[in-house]
Amino acid sequence: MTGATKRQRVLSGIQPSGLIHLGNYFGAIQQHMELQHEFPGECLYFIADYHALTTVHDAEALRTHVFDLAATYLAMGLDPDKALLFRQSDVPEVTELTWLLATVTGMGLLERAVSYKDKVTQGLTASVGLFTYPILMAADILAYDSTMVPVGKDQVQHVEMTRDMATHFNEAYGSKRKPALTLPRYRLSHAPYVPGIDGRKMSKSYGNTIWVFRAGKALRKRVGQIVTDSTPMGEPLDPDNSVVFDLFKLFASEAEQAEVAGYFRAGARDGQPFGYGHAKQLLAAKIDAHFADARARYAELQANPERVEDVLRQSAAKARALARATVDRCKRACGLR
Amino acid sequence: MTGATKRQRVLSGIQPSGLIHLGNYFGAIQQHMELQHEFPGECLYFIADYHALTTVHDAEALRTHVFDLAATYLAMGLDPDKALLFRQSDVPEVTELTWLLATVTGMGLLERAVSYKDKVTQGLTASVGLFTYPILMAADILAYDSTMVPVGKDQVQHVEMTRDMATHFNEAYGSKRKPALTLPRYRLSHAPYVPGIDGRKMSKSYGNTIWVFRAGKALRKRVGQIVTDSTPMGEPLDPDNSVVFDLFKLFASEAEQAEVAGYFRAGARDGQPFGYGHAKQLLAAKIDAHFADARARYAELQANPERVEDVLRQSAAKARALARATVDRCKRACGLR
Repeated sequence: MTGATKRQRVLSGIQPSGLIHLGNYFGAIQQHMELQHEFPGECLYFIADYHALTTVHDAEALRTHVFDLAATYLAMGLDPDKALLFRQSDVPEVTELTWLLATVTGMGLLERAVSYKDKVTQGLTASVGLFTYPILMAADILAYDSTMVPVGKDQVQHVEMTRDMATHFNEAYGSKRKPALTLPRYRLSHAPYVPGIDGRKMSKSYGNTIWVFRAGKALRKRVGQIVTDSTPMGEPLDPDNSVVFDLFKLFASEAEQAEVAGYFRAGARDGQPFGYGHAKQLLAAKIDAHFADARARYAELQANPERVEDVLRQSAAKARALARATVDRCKRACGLR
Repeated sequence: MTGATKRQRVLSGIQPSGLIHLGNYFGAIQQHMELQHEFPGECLYFIADYHALTTVHDAEALRTHVFDLAATYLAMGLDPDKALLFRQSDVPEVTELTWLLATVTGMGLLERAVSYKDKVTQGLTASVGLFTYPILMAADILAYDSTMVPVGKDQVQHVEMTRDMATHFNEAYGSKRKPALTLPRYRLSHAPYVPGIDGRKMSKSYGNTIWVFRAGKALRKRVGQIVTDSTPMGEPLDPDNSVVFDLFKLFASEAEQAEVAGYFRAGARDGQPFGYGHAKQLLAAKIDAHFADARARYAELQANPERVEDVLRQSAAKARALARATVDRCKRACGLR
């Protein structure tokens, strides 16, 4: 990336899939918070509710998930002056752009999409929405003239498909000197590995998550469920082979990590036996403290939902103006105006 | 149909595919003009410009075709107080509804669509737009709570697919007592067979059309190109086996048809030999006279394009309000609001 030489516009979509867990936090939220400071005023984060319809057919659940996600982002420090946070469906222009792109996108491009094949293999219904979703995603990216899309490795293909669609559109319509659509680039995010309580990757579909705002006794209970081996109390433990320590590392400074790794290896702390139970107490305390401020803000937002709605609405209005300009430009290019 | 007992809303899409020929006139326009009197205030005719993008990638041509089509409809007697005439793309709500429907439409439904397979066989690019077009068409029908869709036999499947999609949506979301979408019915149109100048069905793709507003010498020249057999002048002709007579019948009363059929069979008129050349003169005169008034109005509209634009814009505003209400209802049903 050449962030220093060119103004960037950052675009990222967030799935409203339920309560936000540590995997979401370290995989996306933390990065989104950093990006708004790196590119203030140029970050757009949308809550992918149109997309959610490809898997969720429960209106009330969707409404709740969208609200909780927005409240979580605000609680975690999203600054509406630096980053827009809005519902995908509050910018219906993206569905219009989806149609325009669909007319220049060959079936082969979608048929090669990995995520569709994966999802159908996993048992999701092969709906047209699931199949054509990469076009909606491309429209989301292109509608705002985004230049940078932070992605994990598994989403690189989507940005490449977006570039293909934009290129096809620009070639089919409009002049080479002034192409209608801006080609985005992806930026690979290097998210840490976050294990769930069963040791597999933390994921809602595995039921192994820890909610970021779980605290106190409930948090200690959840952390208590993390799998460990059956080493007796007082015997040495291997920090490099422990889900508890893997999670602890995410919250601790290097000095703290070294200190606690010492307890693991010694099976003792300050002359007293040290076991997984003690390690879990340390982890729970870390999580509890890390999210304490955000948790308080989250509770306040849950009690004042109109504050969340205001941000969503104001952000959407700004995002919509950008999308409207792009779609109008595309419509003129292909003769619809 | 039970038109007498229930208020109907009639919806029809028109392809902006170039100058309008006699096949278009007898196949659709004439019927559209009748329907606006049968169901005044309840007819919506949209010019399918979003759809045109699946085959036309020429902005200037599309703009011209859309305008010419609108001017032709107004010239032919479309009354904006009785029927709305608008650009499909002036109601972008239909693309939003397209997405909502796509999430409840199985791939199998589209894969069974005959017209996609036909078009790809004919050599059109297998684009996603071409593949998903039945969903856009369904959205066009459903957005206005249409109850009646006049179709030819080859389009019955599209209305049936629309009913399937609406049923899936209603079942996935919302209560049974108050379904979000209205199920439309089709009404089969019994359009007469209109041969082109080569005897095949009149169609732009065969290059055998007669433009409805061709007149005078140019019209006589075009009619002169109609294929005939090589029966010598003065010999009996078979009116039941003549493209010229087939076309003449479309414009003539039964009495006139009987009279001219007599000339054919006798190979003579008023004691003078009667051949195909004479028959063609009669036909050209009929066409010329039939469209004389409309032709004058068409010329006036071409000279005053803002009048056409005004109708398109005002109709679109009315249509858009209807579509907005439907899409909002659907969004609430699936949790996007």
